[in-house]
Amino acid sequence: MSQFTQDFQNDLLDLMRWRRDVRRFRTDPVDEALLMRCLDTFLLAPSVGLSEPWRLVRVQSDAARDAALRNFQAANADALAGYHGDKAKLYSGLKLSGMREAPVQLAIFCADDTAKGDGLGAATMPETRAYSVVGAITQFWLMARACGLGVGWVSILDPLALARDLKAPGDWRLVAYLCVGWPEEETLTPELETAGWEARRGTLPIEVR
Amino acid sequence: MSQFTQDFQNDLLDLMRWRRDVRRFRTDPVDEALLMRCLDTFLLAPSVGLSEPWRLVRVQSDAARDAALRNFQAANADALAGYHGDKAKLYSGLKLSGMREAPVQLAIFCADDTAKGDGLGAATMPETRAYSVVGAITQFWLMARACGLGVGWVSILDPLALARDLKAPGDWRLVAYLCVGWPEEETLTPELETAGWEARRGTLPIEVR
Repeated sequence: MSQFTQDFQNDLLDLMRWRRDVRRFRTDPVDEALLMRCLDTFLLAPSVGLSEPWRLVRVQSDAARDAALRNFQAANADALAGYHGDKAKLYSGLKLSGMREAPVQLAIFCADDTAKGDGLGAATMPETRAYSVVGAITQFWLMARACGLGVGWVSILDPLALARDLKAPGDWRLVAYLCVGWPEEETLTPELETAGWEARRGTLPIEVR
Repeated sequence: MSQFTQDFQNDLLDLMRWRRDVRRFRTDPVDEALLMRCLDTFLLAPSVGLSEPWRLVRVQSDAARDAALRNFQAANADALAGYHGDKAKLYSGLKLSGMREAPVQLAIFCADDTAKGDGLGAATMPETRAYSVVGAITQFWLMARACGLGVGWVSILDPLALARDLKAPGDWRLVAYLCVGWPEEETLTPELETAGWEARRGTLPIEVR
């Protein structure tokens, strides 16, 4: 099918409305076939020069999960120390990761030195390789939500320490740490908005030249 | 609607299969309401700390388009000079942008210094702000394709020179230059694969720790 109906377009918009960054997961497992079906969307993502620089590490062992959780806790304590007064109080009450509960956890890397694609498109903007990985993550996020799964992106991490703890090759750069599982709730409102941290702008900043 | 059917999930996968990086556009205009409907997906994108750091410039005047096109031509000539023999011959035959034809052109920036979100989530990985912009672009790309429009991401550009030529504020970083319009054709195969530059891998590199 290369034509998409108005109904599908409306449902796609609904999907984007219901997609959340999830930090509250149920602990029941995710079916492997379902997970793989969602992850297959990586293979359909755009990538600069067809470099396909995404590299995934499934963080599964107790040791690997402990290292990731300790990394987050240290980075989060540092971040809290950067806020003061009411803002610090608000920050300390936020739940910013589901790393204790999420049954599936994935560290997503970019192979910055990949030979695939022979550098096409990435000479002046090499960061487009990492951007390709982010595009793939976004596709996965949407497909996971369409299947009822929740995804939470944890960025409060020391990326170099995590790469080392997960024994990632030297040219792999951490792009994201994803928690995946069944969400405790479904909502139209971002958790940071519910918590009073920040609200959506609601308009698109666009200028004309 | 918070539940999505199996049919919708299948159609979403089809959408990702048919999404292309388009460089061959028809020159007929894009309806403004349709364009704005697609761009509204930016407002639904995830962003680190709800920072919503996307900033758009619509590149419309002859002067602005000329500057962007000349920028691409210079960067592309430099890139070509980096290839040799058969690879150079192949590269020189590739069509890598639709900047001469695409009726809508957008430079997408990231406001790295935005106060929105108060830095939440971006202390150790400030690049997640640009990643938020890429997530929004990916959502726009999918919605545009669902509506029959093609999107092409041009990265063969000097980003600092383009930001200067478009009079972007100092803290705006170029993330992408997008060509948007009606595609000349619809196909399941990436153009770089058809041209023999690079093929898709077809499997997902995933390791377990």
